[in-house]
Amino acid sequence: MLVIVFNVGSSSLKFGVFRVDDEAREVLKGSYERFRDGVCEVRIRHEDMDDRWTAECDGVSSAIAEVPALLDRFGLSSIEAVGHRVAHGGALFAAPTILDEATIARIETLTPLAPLHNPANLEAIALSRRLWPEIPQVAVFDTSFHLSNPPFATTYAVPKAWRDAGLRRYGFHGTSHKYVATRVAEEIGIDLADLRIASVHLGNGASICAVNRGVSMDSSMGMTPLEGLVMGTRSGDVDPGAFGHLSRQLGLSIAEVEDALYSQSGLKGLAGSADMRDLEDAATGGDADAQLAIEIYAYRARKYIGAYAAAMAGLDAIVFTGGIGENSPSMRRRILDGLEFMGVRLDHERNQVADLSGRAAPQIQAYGSRVRVLVTETAEQMMIARETAEALARPKPSNGIIAVAVSGRHVHLSRAAVDALFGAGYVLTPETPLRQPGNWAARERVVVKGPKGKLERVAILGPLRARTQVEISRTDSFVLGIDVPVRDSGKLDDTPSVTLVGPAGTVETEGLILAARHIHTNPADAARLGLENGDHVDVHVGDDSRGLTFARTLIRIGANSFTEMHIDTDEANAAGIGGAAEGQIVAGATATIRANHQ
Amino acid sequence: MLVIVFNVGSSSLKFGVFRVDDEAREVLKGSYERFRDGVCEVRIRHEDMDDRWTAECDGVSSAIAEVPALLDRFGLSSIEAVGHRVAHGGALFAAPTILDEATIARIETLTPLAPLHNPANLEAIALSRRLWPEIPQVAVFDTSFHLSNPPFATTYAVPKAWRDAGLRRYGFHGTSHKYVATRVAEEIGIDLADLRIASVHLGNGASICAVNRGVSMDSSMGMTPLEGLVMGTRSGDVDPGAFGHLSRQLGLSIAEVEDALYSQSGLKGLAGSADMRDLEDAATGGDADAQLAIEIYAYRARKYIGAYAAAMAGLDAIVFTGGIGENSPSMRRRILDGLEFMGVRLDHERNQVADLSGRAAPQIQAYGSRVRVLVTETAEQMMIARETAEALARPKPSNGIIAVAVSGRHVHLSRAAVDALFGAGYVLTPETPLRQPGNWAARERVVVKGPKGKLERVAILGPLRARTQVEISRTDSFVLGIDVPVRDSGKLDDTPSVTLVGPAGTVETEGLILAARHIHTNPADAARLGLENGDHVDVHVGDDSRGLTFARTLIRIGANSFTEMHIDTDEANAAGIGGAAEGQIVAGATATIRANHQ
Repeated sequence: MLVIVFNVGSSSLKFGVFRVDDEAREVLKGSYERFRDGVCEVRIRHEDMDDRWTAECDGVSSAIAEVPALLDRFGLSSIEAVGHRVAHGGALFAAPTILDEATIARIETLTPLAPLHNPANLEAIALSRRLWPEIPQVAVFDTSFHLSNPPFATTYAVPKAWRDAGLRRYGFHGTSHKYVATRVAEEIGIDLADLRIASVHLGNGASICAVNRGVSMDSSMGMTPLEGLVMGTRSGDVDPGAFGHLSRQLGLSIAEVEDALYSQSGLKGLAGSADMRDLEDAATGGDADAQLAIEIYAYRARKYIGAYAAAMAGLDAIVFTGGIGENSPSMRRRILDGLEFMGVRLDHERNQVADLSGRAAPQIQAYGSRVRVLVTETAEQMMIARETAEALARPKPSNGIIAVAVSGRHVHLSRAAVDALFGAGYVLTPETPLRQPGNWAARERVVVKGPKGKLERVAILGPLRARTQVEISRTDSFVLGIDVPVRDSGKLDDTPSVTLVGPAGTVETEGLILAARHIHTNPADAARLGLENGDHVDVHVGDDSRGLTFARTLIRIGANSFTEMHIDTDEANAAGIGGAAEGQIVAGATATIRANHQ
Repeated sequence: MLVIVFNVGSSSLKFGVFRVDDEAREVLKGSYERFRDGVCEVRIRHEDMDDRWTAECDGVSSAIAEVPALLDRFGLSSIEAVGHRVAHGGALFAAPTILDEATIARIETLTPLAPLHNPANLEAIALSRRLWPEIPQVAVFDTSFHLSNPPFATTYAVPKAWRDAGLRRYGFHGTSHKYVATRVAEEIGIDLADLRIASVHLGNGASICAVNRGVSMDSSMGMTPLEGLVMGTRSGDVDPGAFGHLSRQLGLSIAEVEDALYSQSGLKGLAGSADMRDLEDAATGGDADAQLAIEIYAYRARKYIGAYAAAMAGLDAIVFTGGIGENSPSMRRRILDGLEFMGVRLDHERNQVADLSGRAAPQIQAYGSRVRVLVTETAEQMMIARETAEALARPKPSNGIIAVAVSGRHVHLSRAAVDALFGAGYVLTPETPLRQPGNWAARERVVVKGPKGKLERVAILGPLRARTQVEISRTDSFVLGIDVPVRDSGKLDDTPSVTLVGPAGTVETEGLILAARHIHTNPADAARLGLENGDHVDVHVGDDSRGLTFARTLIRIGANSFTEMHIDTDEANAAGIGGAAEGQIVAGATATIRANHQ
């Protein structure tokens, strides 16, 4: 499939044409930049050609209007899809979405969240639909990847009325962070679902993302792209008391402060230039402002890496991308110096010579470093092309109806745990068969005990497992007084420990989790519903007025599994489910409510 | 010395009377709180007495006016000094300061930085000086401890005009963090100068301080006490884009947003109560808002601990204080869960039963935990009493004149380094004797090589030392492309490595530092100048109009040392010093410029 991707900034248009099959290859690359006085600078690259010229052009729209003629010139008029980068998808768009009147109307409702960026994206979409009315168009959102962030990472501690008005953390650069994290997993040959990655994107805009076992958990940009790291012209983090001070001392309005935080701050505000190369030269020459700007830039990034290591209980990899991340070995070293305590050791020589040509993603950690360090180009436009093609290839969801079961708290025990709790060699008594074939609830019960309180008569499910696993609800975790992570069943590394009490003794065991909601199904039902193992779907439960949509529900296919969705008691209460219920798998792209899970 | 301490809040007056000799003992404790409708609640504790009553009282001033009668009643009229807690000392007050008209005028200039807090403090000071005109009064600032923070931690990436208007990070709770860090060092029997501590103060206000080898390096509160952690009613960190959004969506003004960030946010904004005990009960009962508020509170604190570990290249201790820090084992556990990767392991049992009675500071880490974890009460008022007494006992500085010498970059080599660089058994050739007896510069030179560039013909100073030490300037560090810490000579743990190149070979060695400026002196001169080994003094160099005051200059007394201050070439350039110069030791309490050192 031949896909054109548009990436519209406040004063630039970049585009790329990609041939997407198993791989995505860029066949044409262009940019229109520096609009002023009715002219702009154009650059077009195609195979060995690299042409630049100045054109008459008074903005993004007139630039886009020239694209069909350019495609003609290079024999690329047969484009089959258009992909648009859209800055802000709010809480509405969790995935790339085919553009139609209804979708565009929903994107328009998000303009207040990104008043500088989304209108430009919408203008490009409108013009592009006029130019190519017959060709499907897809929006890929900079925010979507971060919609998996848990509420404790996205919620500001502000009044409810403000949170209701959309004040929450969203995060940006999602397409870049997703690409880069995927590239790391591929490069080091470990499943992304088993990695904790700090993805460090240092370009004109800059952000760090905590990619926790394949999903974004937190990101340094917040409601807007102002929060977080120091950037070229943006401030990053600033005391919220600054507005009051600047208003009282300098008589500045909100709009004046905000404008300067976007365009007169960051490296430019500190040292007069937004270009790190200029600053590195000036610093070497003794310019104290440039020296300080570089130190602040690195220090802020280092602190975020430490924070995200704490958030994910450690790091497996750090990856650098973006203009500065890719091209400044001394900035990479400056950021990572002093992180040996968390297992980060840089190989200074490898760092210095890191070569990204041919899509390489070199590893630059020292021998023996517990944490891998990589450098890679980002490829947002290629990723958008790929996601555009995937969105169009995705089968219509089947809207299948499935049974929903409520899992009470329970434990799965290992042989060793049964021995300790009930006596050596004790055999549990199967009492109630479960709907999943071969599974049963035992007659025996155990007590689960935490530092704050305990849960009595907790069910034991058989058969025995290799590792003990204790599944409770979020409210149960507050009864116990333990911070318990949401995990897929069986993913028990770095989970907290808890005490189990049986008639013959007690055992202190890891494996305490809030089980991520999931759907058991078998190959036949999965094929009928259009699902694959490991997919995540949204499931709507209840009627439209008071029902809930459970986002990101994992599909687990087993040869003989009974098709059934499992949720915990808190989730059941939230959806108003008493006993048996049914749910409907809905289009995966959107979710009416984001649930409390990471 | 009998000292009364006043701690004035926006709607409360707390005071304590302390007998300060080698120890400080509290002999009377009082509070006037909940002013409303012309009455307030009074509580007085003295020996075994603990009385509460409601009094006629229309604010802090009328409360203070009642104190002399109270002192009379308990036979404490003979107070000899008054200590005042003052919220904001800006960049002007690095230490407790005796209050006179000039000092008060300087505090008044700081009101824009703390418009809610400082005026109340000044009101208390004025009234107290009228009540006790004959007794010396001292201001102890909440910000002073943090004035050692390096510029890369205090500087916001905002326009210069704003930074010139006072927009920078200051940090608060300084008296508490200083006390608590000192208490940790005392409890575990390690010199504070060798410890990296995360001091976690969780009270109504909340902040975390990175106490790096005895000095504050960073703190989560910034220009105002709004930034950082989630607090009782304050938001902590919020995207600076929030103001624009709230203005456009809800029509709120800066003052309205600021007011709500101070008083309607934090735990109260999230879950309706600022009291963690209420929230813990509600969470156990299934209240989703309370559960989320607790999770956010802990997550934010955990991220700051990770960030400060990264800032200090690791942690040796974490200490909890403040109402929540002292009394909530489940919050302590929630914050520290998942930090095992950085060597933090809690003993859940010890955490649960931590007993602070009798000024205990129990250690609650598990056996084998690399990082100590402690809990202790804070004692801000006692600390203020002690610092008040010390400020009054401090001898007038001698204003002595000393020679200032500029140290160019140089290395001190170990035997092994000489062997590697010049050949086994090679003996360096002393060429130029230095002013410090027994020290000389060698005829030989070395090259210092970093990832970015190198320094040619660097001087070698003899005699040989046990560890190689490479002393360069800040600008040199940018030439090399290495982030180099400021250290006292000989403190070389966790310093970066660099390559030395000699005629016979190269050596890769740790020990690369920016030498902290210092004054060599001998016992006789030290006595004459009123200095002790390890003191820090401020030294003014040059005339008033273009000179510089170098803050925190370390005193190093050696039996035969020549009295001389050593600064590096960057510092000399900043002060406009070409060759020889003189400096004057000034009153230690203030500094006209805070220097670029941590």
